Amino acid sequence: MGPVRGRLDGAAPRRCGRLHGVTDRARGIPDIERTAGQAAELPIEPVKAFTAQALTAAGKLPEDAATVAGNFLWADLRGVDTHGVQRLPWYLKWFEDGICNPAAQVEVLRERPTRLSADGHHGLGQNVATRFMQKLIPKAQDAGMCVGVIRNSNDWGCGGWYPHLAAQAGLACVATTTSIPNLAPFGARTRLYGNNPIAFAFPRREGSPILLDMALTPVALGKVLRAQAEGTELPAEWGFRDRDGNLTTDPSVAMKGIIPAIGGYKGTGLAMITNILAGVLSGSAHSAQVEVGRRGQFFLLLDPDVIHPDGAEAYYDAMEDLVSQVRNVDVLPGQQVYLPGEPEQLRLEERTKAGVIRYPASVIDGLRKVASRLGLPFELA
Amino acid sequence: MGPVRGRLDGAAPRRCGRLHGVTDRARGIPDIERTAGQAAELPIEPVKAFTAQALTAAGKLPEDAATVAGNFLWADLRGVDTHGVQRLPWYLKWFEDGICNPAAQVEVLRERPTRLSADGHHGLGQNVATRFMQKLIPKAQDAGMCVGVIRNSNDWGCGGWYPHLAAQAGLACVATTTSIPNLAPFGARTRLYGNNPIAFAFPRREGSPILLDMALTPVALGKVLRAQAEGTELPAEWGFRDRDGNLTTDPSVAMKGIIPAIGGYKGTGLAMITNILAGVLSGSAHSAQVEVGRRGQFFLLLDPDVIHPDGAEAYYDAMEDLVSQVRNVDVLPGQQVYLPGEPEQLRLEERTKAGVIRYPASVIDGLRKVASRLGLPFELA
Repeated sequence: MGPVRGRLDGAAPRRCGRLHGVTDRARGIPDIERTAGQAAELPIEPVKAFTAQALTAAGKLPEDAATVAGNFLWADLRGVDTHGVQRLPWYLKWFEDGICNPAAQVEVLRERPTRLSADGHHGLGQNVATRFMQKLIPKAQDAGMCVGVIRNSNDWGCGGWYPHLAAQAGLACVATTTSIPNLAPFGARTRLYGNNPIAFAFPRREGSPILLDMALTPVALGKVLRAQAEGTELPAEWGFRDRDGNLTTDPSVAMKGIIPAIGGYKGTGLAMITNILAGVLSGSAHSAQVEVGRRGQFFLLLDPDVIHPDGAEAYYDAMEDLVSQVRNVDVLPGQQVYLPGEPEQLRLEERTKAGVIRYPASVIDGLRKVASRLGLPFELA
Repeated sequence: MGPVRGRLDGAAPRRCGRLHGVTDRARGIPDIERTAGQAAELPIEPVKAFTAQALTAAGKLPEDAATVAGNFLWADLRGVDTHGVQRLPWYLKWFEDGICNPAAQVEVLRERPTRLSADGHHGLGQNVATRFMQKLIPKAQDAGMCVGVIRNSNDWGCGGWYPHLAAQAGLACVATTTSIPNLAPFGARTRLYGNNPIAFAFPRREGSPILLDMALTPVALGKVLRAQAEGTELPAEWGFRDRDGNLTTDPSVAMKGIIPAIGGYKGTGLAMITNILAGVLSGSAHSAQVEVGRRGQFFLLLDPDVIHPDGAEAYYDAMEDLVSQVRNVDVLPGQQVYLPGEPEQLRLEERTKAGVIRYPASVIDGLRKVASRLGLPFELA
């Protein structure tokens, strides 16, 4: 851990860079390279096995590598493609750069029946947060509830995964994480807060939980990057502004300017609140100091059987009543109404049945380069 | 409680009314009457005393009446005028109509060191939720944290009040409530969820806490009602839609149509989640069944001293570092940057110093009618 800690703890906050827009390098996202390859369908299980193999070759324990691969594939199966195996090359680069420790394990700092704090020691977020959930779930089952905070974690991949684990154990869960500063306080241009995801899950009597996993911008930033790559303009109603606060439709100006949050000051307010829950209360880096290896995470787990005054069956009855009310709404012309998490669950079922996922050329190319760098066979595409 | 319970528990859900827009009557808001009076400055303490006197005359215990009056004046002092003494006539009407019980007290249903559930027995929300907070705060101080849910509560007035009470005791707090259905699931026109407020407070070492109290629409619905009263159009970018989902600038059409939530499906998703936390988990009414006397509320209280791995001083240091980062941002031309809750706190200090609050004619007229109905002297204006 020596070099990793030194690198992370000794670095002065890069305020200058932050004021003028965080570079992809500072975010831990390597430059996107053009690829001459083609999109293709890859078989699910071999992609997962290859991913785990690559992570193991890079220094992770096999069990930990399988956990990260599991989170990646869950994202890809659900259609949250930006959070899946596309990130494998990034993470391997972090290991090479010494800003993330593949062998890191979660260290418990303080423990009581209903609360837990831990240090992720700059490991991969999927590992840190999954291991942490594996400690929180039995605690919440024993005590009826539990609050947990982690410091020195990382990008946690697909955030719905963690509340989903709780829901599979019959628990409700709220989780949030800090992320690289993108959002300025309302009225300012200095980026202090991440576009922090908040994820909620509530178990149902049968089937998939209600699962809301959302970040705080109205439009995914990936769409702005795509417009930039394709040379198209942004719709003005997306609300992106230049550095002086004027509306802009130029994606290059937008990415360097003021990124809008949902509901204006409400969204930036939620960015500050999640920054406090996940960054300040966890004892991790917060606000402008959040970077690779220094994210914090916050979790609340609740057992409906002990929180609901009439116990689990009354809770499940009310949840089914709620779902039935949603199923019976008057739908607008040309629209469809889903439960939170339902479109993703339907995609997961469809892709699982097909046994393959269609990946863009850039992702396949990334995996091929990983194979070549680690000296692994790549026989998927 | 006989007639109140019978009325509340026996009523069939008014689905028809809900589908076509909830009437003000169903919401518990009396028709707004035109007034010929004038706006005026009223002295703070006598307004508070009059409010408490009126509530006592209507059947509340003096201590409970003072609690409600305290919440009203706190709202008015902070400039959240829609949540202050303007509501006094509504509440008195609820008592007269038998849909709210002035004498109701909170009944604890289930209690453990870190959790509490209770029944508000259709009392005024300010009483129910304040009494409940008074039970939760010592529990969170003893155990380091606490989760509480209440059923059969009411409109809680100014929601920031409850987390603020926790912050005064050195605790962080997240609170949310159900409210009368206004928002449809994304893609639908049937109103299932309230524009549910979420309020957060985090204590600082000195002075006012960070306090975010927000509902889920981008624009306060009061602004639409004002446009309706004044015969002006709504800006199209407010995003109101008619019942077929087409954008509208007509405030009358807007109020009967699709009310937008912050971030589209994200805001309606948060409406569903707060509906589950406060309505389902509490064992209260939820979704389309929420009405006067049947709101639910959810509270999470955390002691930073035991949640932060390094204790209270490290937490307060990080909070001051965060505040200092906000104070040092690069502000956009013509803008000002505040902490959440800061503009309201500044207004409270200013109005407290002045000793008076300027009320619109309609509010003064409402107080005067209350005095006349209850046979109380009204010598404020």
